[in-house]
Amino acid sequence: MTGRQSVSDDRTRHWLAERAWLPGVGVLADVLIEAAGDRFTAITPDTPAASAPAGTTRLPGLTMPGLANAHSHAFHRALRGITHRAGPAGHGTFWTWRERMYQVADRLDPDSYLALARAVFAEMTLAGISCVGEFHYLHHGPGGQRYADPNAMSAALIEAAAQAGLRITLLDTCYLTGGLDRAGGALPLAGPQTRFGDGTGQAWAERVGLLGGDAHGQVGPAARVGAAIHSVRAVPLDQMAEVIAWSHRHGAPLHAHLSEQVAENEACLAAYGGTPAEVLYRAGALGPRTTAVHATHLTNADIRLLAESETFACACPTTEADLADGIGPFAALAAAGCRLTVGSDSQAVVDLLEETRRIEMYQRLATGRRGHFGAEALGTAVTWDGHASLGWPDAGEIAPGALADLVTIGLDSPRLAGAVDAAVLAGQSGVPGADPAGSDLPEFGPDLAVLAAVLFTATAADVRNVVVGGRDVVAEGRHLLVGDVPAALGAAIRAVLG
Amino acid sequence: MTGRQSVSDDRTRHWLAERAWLPGVGVLADVLIEAAGDRFTAITPDTPAASAPAGTTRLPGLTMPGLANAHSHAFHRALRGITHRAGPAGHGTFWTWRERMYQVADRLDPDSYLALARAVFAEMTLAGISCVGEFHYLHHGPGGQRYADPNAMSAALIEAAAQAGLRITLLDTCYLTGGLDRAGGALPLAGPQTRFGDGTGQAWAERVGLLGGDAHGQVGPAARVGAAIHSVRAVPLDQMAEVIAWSHRHGAPLHAHLSEQVAENEACLAAYGGTPAEVLYRAGALGPRTTAVHATHLTNADIRLLAESETFACACPTTEADLADGIGPFAALAAAGCRLTVGSDSQAVVDLLEETRRIEMYQRLATGRRGHFGAEALGTAVTWDGHASLGWPDAGEIAPGALADLVTIGLDSPRLAGAVDAAVLAGQSGVPGADPAGSDLPEFGPDLAVLAAVLFTATAADVRNVVVGGRDVVAEGRHLLVGDVPAALGAAIRAVLG
Repeated sequence: MTGRQSVSDDRTRHWLAERAWLPGVGVLADVLIEAAGDRFTAITPDTPAASAPAGTTRLPGLTMPGLANAHSHAFHRALRGITHRAGPAGHGTFWTWRERMYQVADRLDPDSYLALARAVFAEMTLAGISCVGEFHYLHHGPGGQRYADPNAMSAALIEAAAQAGLRITLLDTCYLTGGLDRAGGALPLAGPQTRFGDGTGQAWAERVGLLGGDAHGQVGPAARVGAAIHSVRAVPLDQMAEVIAWSHRHGAPLHAHLSEQVAENEACLAAYGGTPAEVLYRAGALGPRTTAVHATHLTNADIRLLAESETFACACPTTEADLADGIGPFAALAAAGCRLTVGSDSQAVVDLLEETRRIEMYQRLATGRRGHFGAEALGTAVTWDGHASLGWPDAGEIAPGALADLVTIGLDSPRLAGAVDAAVLAGQSGVPGADPAGSDLPEFGPDLAVLAAVLFTATAADVRNVVVGGRDVVAEGRHLLVGDVPAALGAAIRAVLG
Repeated sequence: MTGRQSVSDDRTRHWLAERAWLPGVGVLADVLIEAAGDRFTAITPDTPAASAPAGTTRLPGLTMPGLANAHSHAFHRALRGITHRAGPAGHGTFWTWRERMYQVADRLDPDSYLALARAVFAEMTLAGISCVGEFHYLHHGPGGQRYADPNAMSAALIEAAAQAGLRITLLDTCYLTGGLDRAGGALPLAGPQTRFGDGTGQAWAERVGLLGGDAHGQVGPAARVGAAIHSVRAVPLDQMAEVIAWSHRHGAPLHAHLSEQVAENEACLAAYGGTPAEVLYRAGALGPRTTAVHATHLTNADIRLLAESETFACACPTTEADLADGIGPFAALAAAGCRLTVGSDSQAVVDLLEETRRIEMYQRLATGRRGHFGAEALGTAVTWDGHASLGWPDAGEIAPGALADLVTIGLDSPRLAGAVDAAVLAGQSGVPGADPAGSDLPEFGPDLAVLAAVLFTATAADVRNVVVGGRDVVAEGRHLLVGDVPAALGAAIRAVLG
């Protein structure tokens, strides 16, 4: 199904980055980046422009590895402009929001979903995202009717990513029940939820098996399949085993929403006598290929379970504010050893730079203290760790052999003007704002100071160039494959809602 | 000193807004807006383009009253890129941040401050801000040496606003002491703080008196002077009377930082036996011309004092996250009757649309509930109430007789594409995402749905046109007076830090 996924040929290509952040190394200047096919082949700092090969593309600004959007529901984008508002009469909760979201879900078919997801993925690419983890549960037709191809919706999403030019991990999501009752039983799917259900974990695995792909779930040069347990609300404990087994057989990512809302924890405790993290642990779902999405309302024991099992924790800060989820214990999770990732989730905002800095900012709001995360920790979350959580351990760094994904942030907008100059000057002694005693800490060196300045001030609007698998997808802020992304978004959304 | 402030002549000018939000009325279509000199003279909705007078400027998107930035420290902009980061070693607090800020303050003189503030005010104008309240305490030369004109720094700020084309209220700030000691005494100013001090409240009032202006503090067609008490830390109770008396004599705004940090409350309680709000109340500083900036750590009694005195409360959400201040009780303040305003404060971010929605979003994070503020309440805070708090009660609305300040938000970026369509469709019945029962609430009508969609999704990068006092200052995203704003920012910041 990914036959239309075009990839670069094996010709050698070159980019010359004014500055580039090489994770684990630092921010270097005048970095010549070479790729053949979809992988980097050589990285050479301090290359004068005159020494660069003919045909080299100049990248003014700060170049980073492409950003990984570790948690996305593409169709929620149709709710932007609707979802956020909630009147003072108090009828806006996560659960009333969910009713609206279901109404949109109920309108989609494979064609309209392809058009919508293509536009949304193009918006993501414009924002510097080179890889998306699409948490996908809208599998079947209205009323639960199977499409002729039972994976028609999954195929639409993979095709949408190919057309938008970014890497995708389709996190095919098992969603079987409408919630937990107090007696430990499960509520049946109702209304639009009937489109989500495969009936059993085994039926889910059989359908996903039809997606094909290699032993590791890769279904194309830039697409792979992973598994997801929607939540403890939606998959009974006795049905989780099939999903987990599938992910083990394929060495594939396994994602799950975890403790996003207090009510979810309460229902889980009543039904199972344990927290959602404890239930996933008992089921064998936690581990180094697993991502716990949100991880908002955790006990200290939950944090230990996630960390000791090497489970990733995915923060979606703008969504977690919009839906009044709360502030998750991401500093504690990181301190315990969890690798963090970042997601745009409900698409209320598609700006992973904004999401990333909010991980730090929300901890400041919650604790009254600054300095929970250094620049490199935040940068690693949104690149290397995000890709690893999506089953691309060979992406998210600028190094020979890695997948050739880049994003370049321009430094010449009103937002960034002077900010990098200030950061560099502050990394030197004797100037105003100079770093305090202890400035030998790595995050205060002049190199990572530049990364910090960008991560704390740039927005999606500052993204200038994006390369995915060696192919230029965004150049000078323009999407080379989709063209007019706002027009594509508007048309797709009106088609769904109108 | 404002002789270079150019204003429109009395010729009649016209703009045709595709959509315009008229506070108290709603969002109307095809609104012909007429101004003569610096005031609106007629507002006519449903005007076909063909009926608009020759020379009418088209404003595609949503046009609103100009945004009021109710709390600004212009020079903090030089710290962008430096201030945010703080390493995990834990040496980043509000107080270490302040040390860096002082180092920058110590470098400025009237010329370099003019250049820096001009560029920062231009950045604000590009972000849709037509009026700034500049909380100004950097009065004197290094070591406290008076300039030949003791108001040279104030004059530089007023001139900078004139050159950048926006309205200014110079909140001339009394700053006398370096803090409170436990015995109720005051610590002397030290280091860079010596530049802030006038010695006594009376000396402050004498200096401010030299700024001239009319009986109401207006010093030019788009500039007025207000008063500020920096904080209970910086002005002893017995010195506040002169500042308050000056503001009463001129009917001028009176602003004060209030309870931004827990340590401030603790020192105040130890010194005075009362909270900062109680101390300001005792001094007679609270009232309908007063703004309490931050208002983060308040008791219920503090909230009552502010509300019953009709004091404004100014939220600066991105700064309050950056500096780890915490989440202030803005829903409780509004419920008690306080009018809210919005400020960019430290300039870590200059985006009042982002600041405004964060007032709601932080309440969601703190409470686990949505729907604390409707769209009109948020829009009013950043326009009408912001202007009122800065002494411009005749600005911040689109109505005949009001000062002719407008901002137009484009709806065609990737951020906004489809969002207004979705909001309009959701205001109609029977479509996906339709508003729930109770949709007769005003914030759910199709008209205010458009305002909500914009306030919750647009950013400073979406501002297309800005009119201040009948004059086009920003057109198609370009600053007509300053030109290359990023270049101006970069040059001014390098000159200060380099």
